[in-house]
Amino acid sequence: MRTIKETGEAALAAKRELARLSAADKNNILLKCAAALRQNADAVIAANTADTENAKAAGIKPSLTDRLRLDVSRINAMAEGLEQVAALPEPTGEIFDMKTLPNGLVVGKKRVPMGVIGIIYEARPNVTSDAFGLCIKAGSAVILRGGKEAINSNKTTISIFREVIKGEGVNPDIVQLIEDTSRESATAMMKMNGYIDVLIPRGGAGLIRSVVQNATVPVIETGVGNCHVFVDKSAKLEDAVNIIVNAKAQRPSVCNAAETLLVHGDIAAEFLPAAAKALREKNVELRCDSEAAAYVGECVPATEEDWATEYLDYILAVKVVGGIDEAIDHIARYSTGHSEAIVSEDYTNCKRFTDEVDSAAVYVNASTRFTDGNEFGFGAEIGISTQKLHARGPMGLRELTTTKYIIYGNGQIRK
Amino acid sequence: MRTIKETGEAALAAKRELARLSAADKNNILLKCAAALRQNADAVIAANTADTENAKAAGIKPSLTDRLRLDVSRINAMAEGLEQVAALPEPTGEIFDMKTLPNGLVVGKKRVPMGVIGIIYEARPNVTSDAFGLCIKAGSAVILRGGKEAINSNKTTISIFREVIKGEGVNPDIVQLIEDTSRESATAMMKMNGYIDVLIPRGGAGLIRSVVQNATVPVIETGVGNCHVFVDKSAKLEDAVNIIVNAKAQRPSVCNAAETLLVHGDIAAEFLPAAAKALREKNVELRCDSEAAAYVGECVPATEEDWATEYLDYILAVKVVGGIDEAIDHIARYSTGHSEAIVSEDYTNCKRFTDEVDSAAVYVNASTRFTDGNEFGFGAEIGISTQKLHARGPMGLRELTTTKYIIYGNGQIRK
Repeated sequence: MRTIKETGEAALAAKRELARLSAADKNNILLKCAAALRQNADAVIAANTADTENAKAAGIKPSLTDRLRLDVSRINAMAEGLEQVAALPEPTGEIFDMKTLPNGLVVGKKRVPMGVIGIIYEARPNVTSDAFGLCIKAGSAVILRGGKEAINSNKTTISIFREVIKGEGVNPDIVQLIEDTSRESATAMMKMNGYIDVLIPRGGAGLIRSVVQNATVPVIETGVGNCHVFVDKSAKLEDAVNIIVNAKAQRPSVCNAAETLLVHGDIAAEFLPAAAKALREKNVELRCDSEAAAYVGECVPATEEDWATEYLDYILAVKVVGGIDEAIDHIARYSTGHSEAIVSEDYTNCKRFTDEVDSAAVYVNASTRFTDGNEFGFGAEIGISTQKLHARGPMGLRELTTTKYIIYGNGQIRK
Repeated sequence: MRTIKETGEAALAAKRELARLSAADKNNILLKCAAALRQNADAVIAANTADTENAKAAGIKPSLTDRLRLDVSRINAMAEGLEQVAALPEPTGEIFDMKTLPNGLVVGKKRVPMGVIGIIYEARPNVTSDAFGLCIKAGSAVILRGGKEAINSNKTTISIFREVIKGEGVNPDIVQLIEDTSRESATAMMKMNGYIDVLIPRGGAGLIRSVVQNATVPVIETGVGNCHVFVDKSAKLEDAVNIIVNAKAQRPSVCNAAETLLVHGDIAAEFLPAAAKALREKNVELRCDSEAAAYVGECVPATEEDWATEYLDYILAVKVVGGIDEAIDHIARYSTGHSEAIVSEDYTNCKRFTDEVDSAAVYVNASTRFTDGNEFGFGAEIGISTQKLHARGPMGLRELTTTKYIIYGNGQIRK
């Protein structure tokens, strides 16, 4: 097993070879990896069975074991994911903003690979192939560190990919798995300065917090979404009901699901009974401030903590507000900066909401559930950034690249 | 004196007010601050005199005291800097990449302020007004923390700016100075998650290392430049001599100055004696590998450490290489990823150098000294990023902004 330093050195050597590959070479590797994954599905499933049995023996709860489980259909989905990424346009090589300076220097930017990308994740073994595909297509070597629950699945998957890469005459260290799943190896990975150019955590709030607190390499913070829907006085009520039901209940476990409903006081008496009925039909529990409670019948009183909670569950906090100002203030105070929506027919309020709400994605008259790389047309995504550096919102292939300046002269020196 | 938390809360309140100001309002504040700085030059100089006297009493070395000193001409330069920034185009508000998705959603990006920018710096009091001007123009509240040597100068400067801002009816907390100059206050600032959106260190390698190691907020790493010039076999020798002399000796104390000269073996006998003569006329000490030493006469033998050193001084490491491959390998191993140049008439080698050298700025036949926001035509710069996230190379106003997605619907929900 390689040390962290050996892993880093191997990635540095491999990244230069990878950066020189043509788009066709990279796509060929991805397609062959997809084929090899399908051909070796039995081996992956055998490794995964060991993982799920270990998880059961360790008393891990069924919802987690379900995320961990691979079957033929999930392995096919992983292979299809690689094929889809292979089919996307090449993200590097573009040269732009080229201009001639008064001194004759020609200066422009070229889109180039990051170099080495680190991905740290939890029990989902499909992240292994998804992250591999996106990083390789973006021209960067990738160092993966998945959770201990999926270690056998991950080792088998990565060894299949590395065999393919070697068979194509390319350095297999363009992808490496950190096989030590101790907490120490995770912390060491977060401090691989000089080796890792960007570290992206994919997982729950605890993992993300740990990476933000401990990493000394650049990090892209992803995912935590305390998302809001504000129903304004002028909202079309049927749209508003559909949007909050969709934003909350279509898939409550994901980061772009809504967690708090804010309702203009002037429309609360009309809107809230209808919304409550539709939400309860989807088994959503309502946690209301006293004013909202008056319109929805029996419900749990909301506490200060509810406004700040990402439930990821069939629970919705509900608050009646005096208008757009109070709605924007509430969002400024409690939002995690992921996705927020206004439902309104009022032009000025829609404009103010999009101008003043400081989140990665701000919606007018649509569900927050659309904040997603596939929905936005990127073809694939590595995660959703909730920070403001580099990438904000869904991150596709382009967000996994960087730029460099190239400057052509004919002997210029600085005066 | 405010606590760090109070400073953060004040910035959060002020950033929303600042984000709503028009470009004209922001420019008006900057111009009035410039005028106030000129009018109150005496007060700033008095405060600065206290700083320089404290520095002398503390036995601080003259080169540092020189950086610390303000006189009328330096204060005029600070005021002019604010006026220049006011004259630059507004960096926020642009809406781009707008498209209509198949479901009718209209999705695009809007360029918006970061929110709150933190700047941590050392003894140069002019950074106080430079950073203030750029951050405010970019629409972000700014929290400044300068070195203890300049505390009186900084307090006086910031209090002048805050009076102007208050006089314009704007919340003066759009700029705050952390007056506690203890190490603890610096560390606390580096962990202002939830308040500071990006922290930019401006100073020497020690400060930058400390920020990278300790910060939990997103950081842009700036500045350290172990820059290389490679003189290829086909180089025009006169250009090559001019370029290395300029890159090394025009201003050796800055990050875009060259630190290592790499010379193709086939041209070393002809080029190195001429280069050594010209460099020595500028009092540059040469530290050579044994092959280079044979052509330059008496010199210091280079050690492994020399290849990795950013001298920031009249010292140059010199190495003879077998050709472009060895040059690129050497740069890959020792460079800090700032600026590198090739001097060559060989098309393929020039192309390979720009393709394969992984630095923020890669030059063909020009001095590395051009890596600078003003030289590149940005009008001003906050620093030079040597990391790959968000911004790489000189950072102007645009690099101090972020984007958000805005999405216009008419009732869309996710299927």
